[in-house]
Amino acid sequence: MNVLGISGSLRKGSFNTATLRAAQAAAPAGMKIEIGEIADLPVYNGDLDNDQSRPQSVKTFVAKIAAADAVLIATPEYNYSIPGGLKNAIDWASRGKPQPFQGKPVAILGASMGVLGTARAQYHLRQVFVFLDAHVLNKPEIFIGKAQDKFDGEGKLTDEATRQLIGAQLEALAGWTRRLKG
Amino acid sequence: MNVLGISGSLRKGSFNTATLRAAQAAAPAGMKIEIGEIADLPVYNGDLDNDQSRPQSVKTFVAKIAAADAVLIATPEYNYSIPGGLKNAIDWASRGKPQPFQGKPVAILGASMGVLGTARAQYHLRQVFVFLDAHVLNKPEIFIGKAQDKFDGEGKLTDEATRQLIGAQLEALAGWTRRLKG
Amino acid sequence: MNVLGISGSLRKGSFNTATLRAAQAAAPAGMKIEIGEIADLPVYNGDLDNDQSRPQSVKTFVAKIAAADAVLIATPEYNYSIPGGLKNAIDWASRGKPQPFQGKPVAILGASMGVLGTARAQYHLRQVFVFLDAHVLNKPEIFIGKAQDKFDGEGKLTDEATRQLIGAQLEALAGWTRRLKG
Amino acid sequence: MNVLGISGSLRKGSFNTATLRAAQAAAPAGMKIEIGEIADLPVYNGDLDNDQSRPQSVKTFVAKIAAADAVLIATPEYNYSIPGGLKNAIDWASRGKPQPFQGKPVAILGASMGVLGTARAQYHLRQVFVFLDAHVLNKPEIFIGKAQDKFDGEGKLTDEATRQLIGAQLEALAGWTRRLKG
Repeated sequence: MNVLGISGSLRKGSFNTATLRAAQAAAPAGMKIEIGEIADLPVYNGDLDNDQSRPQSVKTFVAKIAAADAVLIATPEYNYSIPGGLKNAIDWASRGKPQPFQGKPVAILGASMGVLGTARAQYHLRQVFVFLDAHVLNKPEIFIGKAQDKFDGEGKLTDEATRQLIGAQLEALAGWTRRLKG
Repeated sequence: MNVLGISGSLRKGSFNTATLRAAQAAAPAGMKIEIGEIADLPVYNGDLDNDQSRPQSVKTFVAKIAAADAVLIATPEYNYSIPGGLKNAIDWASRGKPQPFQGKPVAILGASMGVLGTARAQYHLRQVFVFLDAHVLNKPEIFIGKAQDKFDGEGKLTDEATRQLIGAQLEALAGWTRRLKG
Repeated sequence: MNVLGISGSLRKGSFNTATLRAAQAAAPAGMKIEIGEIADLPVYNGDLDNDQSRPQSVKTFVAKIAAADAVLIATPEYNYSIPGGLKNAIDWASRGKPQPFQGKPVAILGASMGVLGTARAQYHLRQVFVFLDAHVLNKPEIFIGKAQDKFDGEGKLTDEATRQLIGAQLEALAGWTRRLKG
Repeated sequence: MNVLGISGSLRKGSFNTATLRAAQAAAPAGMKIEIGEIADLPVYNGDLDNDQSRPQSVKTFVAKIAAADAVLIATPEYNYSIPGGLKNAIDWASRGKPQPFQGKPVAILGASMGVLGTARAQYHLRQVFVFLDAHVLNKPEIFIGKAQDKFDGEGKLTDEATRQLIGAQLEALAGWTRRLKG
């Protein structure tokens, strides 16, 4: 089972990218998580959205989503919603033909320094995926609050309860993906 | 009264940019609406967000918000939420010191080809502005559905009911701004 | 396939109850839609929520949800959200043991006199069902705006496009239910 | 300044009713908080919503909102949204003529045993108050998580940080109310 991990932060020291690395380590047997790249996508402009001028980075991103069995999104929360950069990547991807999130199993988690652990951003993302007709895993939800206490200086997850929760979400995502495949 | 208009679309033929032009024409006496520019803001990256590397386009955008008496946002809806590019511009602006939306009167409207007229994007924006401590006008809300029937080929608003509604919102924004100033 | 229909309105002439009747008529072969009753549920009070004092009406409602293969909710929108009465019925049901929405396929639609067709209430409902771990159908969404033009004086649906959309949603719900059963 | 406090829970031992009592104790000089009653409101039914059959409890509730200078809502979160009973009370109130929340300053807070402190319910409430044209205080927001550790067995708030935050919110509500009055 091939999972595409997408981090909503471009920052090198991002807790959310670190969460994806922790997910790679916690993945159940048979699941491989590749981390996708959204840093090189320009801001979406409908005038560039045609076969001639669509950036190669967009085509690559769309192809990776399409090829994955499932998608795992680690999102920060900026201003009580989805980071603009992550939403921009999803906006570009949504223009793919075929639209690559269509029918795709998706799991969402997130890390923040506050106590809410990006919950507000995650519910906005869930609404986005209704339109895109992806199938977002209900549970377990993962809100990693006070992330600064749960990762060390090298971005390694040190909190055992969080590690187990991530493992449980990946198990649930694997089961959900198999169930949707029939 | 100086109002900064922000369009959530970068597309030249955008209905939302056209809505801002219609707002300029419908503004009550004493209100001037300048249309701001978000096309040249890069995707936000926390590693670039410091005094040395913050782009000049960000500084200009923040300064324009700070200088305005009120802000008028015309937003498309992408994938049932705020366009990534608009959210990205707000994310950059939110890092300004002082944060320029703090205490700012804001009105929101939007145009789409569907019937909901960007309502879902507008409610997400309202949640964003709780965090930013802006004061978003409650009413009238403006959801310009079936925009293709309300603008002509040159992007000129031809629907009289919509024109009057925009005028009413701008009057309400003017009153709200004066009321908050005390 | 047995579907439990729940109307969010208690009003006799309700467009949403009328929508459920239209759904009964539009149901695909093999699907039977029973309309449940929420009018006799008292306002939830945790002090009454125990084996001794839980009202019989609650037990009946929970049992009907549990027995259904899928649930179809026709919701009005009150004050930009879920009607209190419908939310109250869901709150009571959520206390059932086992919780009857757990893993249940759910479809949502709604009718209103305005143009948005209860969209705002429907997105709030979708968030509720994340917690309850139900599986809400993504598409087609049904927002029956200007309902007064689409039903006759006896509450009979007269709009053919809406009738077909309801039929399509029920087909999709049937497929979704079969798919989740495996 | 007369503030009407509304608790979203009917339970005698409710943390949210306890929060309102704590607010009464923390109110700044010149502010009096009366706690309103929603337990005796029946579930809303449009067929009962006329001059003859509107319950007396509804008229009393509407009159208290109308008479208050501001409203303070302490809400639990049921199933990731507003409790049905609280929403039902607001639905009844919204039918008052004149609509009593129109232009009213409102502050929202909430207590829960989980870590999110009713945040999801509070954002749904904020959307409700856009329709009702109330003016909801932006900040400080109050999410009292792990309430069981912050109140004693008699429902007395024992957490000093929370007490100070409630005091700060009431100060902000007083300022907001004065500012809106002009």
